[in-house]
Amino acid sequence: MNNFADRLTAAILAKQSQVCVGLDPRLDRMPPSLVERYREVPRKGCGCGRHEIGACFEEFGAAIIDAVAPHAVAIKLQLACFEQYGPPGIKAFKHLCKRAAKAGLMVIADAKRGDIGISAAAYSAAFIGRPQGFDGEIDGFNADALTVNPLFGSDGMQPFIDDCEKYGAGIFVLVKTSNPGSADLQDLKFQEKVAVLVDQWGQGLIGESGYSSVGAVIGATHPETLATLRQALPHTPFLLPGYGVQGAGAADVAPAIDFRGLGALVTASRSIIYAGAGEDFARSAAEAAERMHVELWQASRG
Amino acid sequence: MNNFADRLTAAILAKQSQVCVGLDPRLDRMPPSLVERYREVPRKGCGCGRHEIGACFEEFGAAIIDAVAPHAVAIKLQLACFEQYGPPGIKAFKHLCKRAAKAGLMVIADAKRGDIGISAAAYSAAFIGRPQGFDGEIDGFNADALTVNPLFGSDGMQPFIDDCEKYGAGIFVLVKTSNPGSADLQDLKFQEKVAVLVDQWGQGLIGESGYSSVGAVIGATHPETLATLRQALPHTPFLLPGYGVQGAGAADVAPAIDFRGLGALVTASRSIIYAGAGEDFARSAAEAAERMHVELWQASRG
Repeated sequence: MNNFADRLTAAILAKQSQVCVGLDPRLDRMPPSLVERYREVPRKGCGCGRHEIGACFEEFGAAIIDAVAPHAVAIKLQLACFEQYGPPGIKAFKHLCKRAAKAGLMVIADAKRGDIGISAAAYSAAFIGRPQGFDGEIDGFNADALTVNPLFGSDGMQPFIDDCEKYGAGIFVLVKTSNPGSADLQDLKFQEKVAVLVDQWGQGLIGESGYSSVGAVIGATHPETLATLRQALPHTPFLLPGYGVQGAGAADVAPAIDFRGLGALVTASRSIIYAGAGEDFARSAAEAAERMHVELWQASRG
Repeated sequence: MNNFADRLTAAILAKQSQVCVGLDPRLDRMPPSLVERYREVPRKGCGCGRHEIGACFEEFGAAIIDAVAPHAVAIKLQLACFEQYGPPGIKAFKHLCKRAAKAGLMVIADAKRGDIGISAAAYSAAFIGRPQGFDGEIDGFNADALTVNPLFGSDGMQPFIDDCEKYGAGIFVLVKTSNPGSADLQDLKFQEKVAVLVDQWGQGLIGESGYSSVGAVIGATHPETLATLRQALPHTPFLLPGYGVQGAGAADVAPAIDFRGLGALVTASRSIIYAGAGEDFARSAAEAAERMHVELWQASRG
């Protein structure tokens, strides 16, 4: 089974869960005792603490991954949080991609990349394809899927679509983001255009599950948009941010999910990973993920 | 002088040049003798060659930077090319940012980032702001400016604008990209909307030069759009990709430049950095940059 949508479908059905946990590590939100421990470590390099912050993110992320693995189908790693710490941040990201895969979770790189020509091809290679080495292809980050910004249009998307086919990977295209400012440019006409393109881009990648490896990111904070787009895009898996802290609940996302429980991954970040701030933060995260798991599965079956 | 547009203006006038060299290193386009030398080095880590490719990019990039420094005002580093090699790629990017600054060039991180909330703030901190360390702010990549994808709207842009003000940095917002597929979503109405927003976002950041620290990326391959947007955005510095290999010439970009020679940076990548493939690639790059420098300055004064 080498179609992303088919692998996603199998994972959702096996775990009876549409939960995707967003891993957005922030120094000022992580358990103080954990941060304190890394602050005291002798510092590598220039002494600014970048290496130790990377190591701290690895420990935090690994604990969260192990805690939520029974309840979640996927982990979504926010690149921005890692990139700001330079090479050690990227090292932590890479390590956590591997760790999540080992824990049986699908890995979504939430990098919102997009460009044209060789730059688009290089981003695709980095996250879901295979970069060029001295003697042929080498490993990139090997994520299962990547979030992609569609602004550049069809030729900018093509390298990502090609890698989905070649490597059994997936992409989630930004159609309507969860923030209030999304109205500035992602108006109704823009969303309709992107929706038509997402459908086209995904046509060649529909698996036996009936879903395509080209998915769409749609803010769960726009339930009316969700229902409209579900009808317009019957083959498109949705990635729905905005659950929990941003205000959307199980009833808001239910219209995006089909009668089999398929068609959407619902992501929550802060409400899960920062559910507890003590030594037992991982247990708090596990409990929050379990609650979300049960709420969602019930609402989607209701 | 801590306004990006004022620093850019001073640099253009001092060098009488609007040249921005795009550094997009690709293993299959760099001088074979250079690549061969790094291929033979004993390999670190897993042996895939990622570390040695990073080192090869550093040597190539440093030679290009030194060669073009007399003719160029800025270096634009394409993040995708570096990111695909993981931590060693990012290390090379960071090193070359420093090297370019030391050579007296302004550094534009061509990362086309964009997101919302804390993720947008983290991207901004990474490239033009200051990430949070254990004991206050630490260094990020310290670029002078960053290319930004505006899809998320005003609240997504705010962290970048704030850092422009706080750190004297700049951003170039994607308004119309140089590729054919740009027509899919960046239609006339979309461009007009973004243009209005770019003008608004830049209002508080207009320097003594009359230009703002919020610039616009507009493909030089659309000369008619360029003239229209120049009129609509009198305070906006333009970053114009598409010169050289992509087909635009000096006459195409002249309408974007004002009577003082200001208002635009014109970027060329492949036609400069791959001008020669031999041992003397840096001399070939210097000659190509000099030709472009003279052509542009003359056309903009004509």
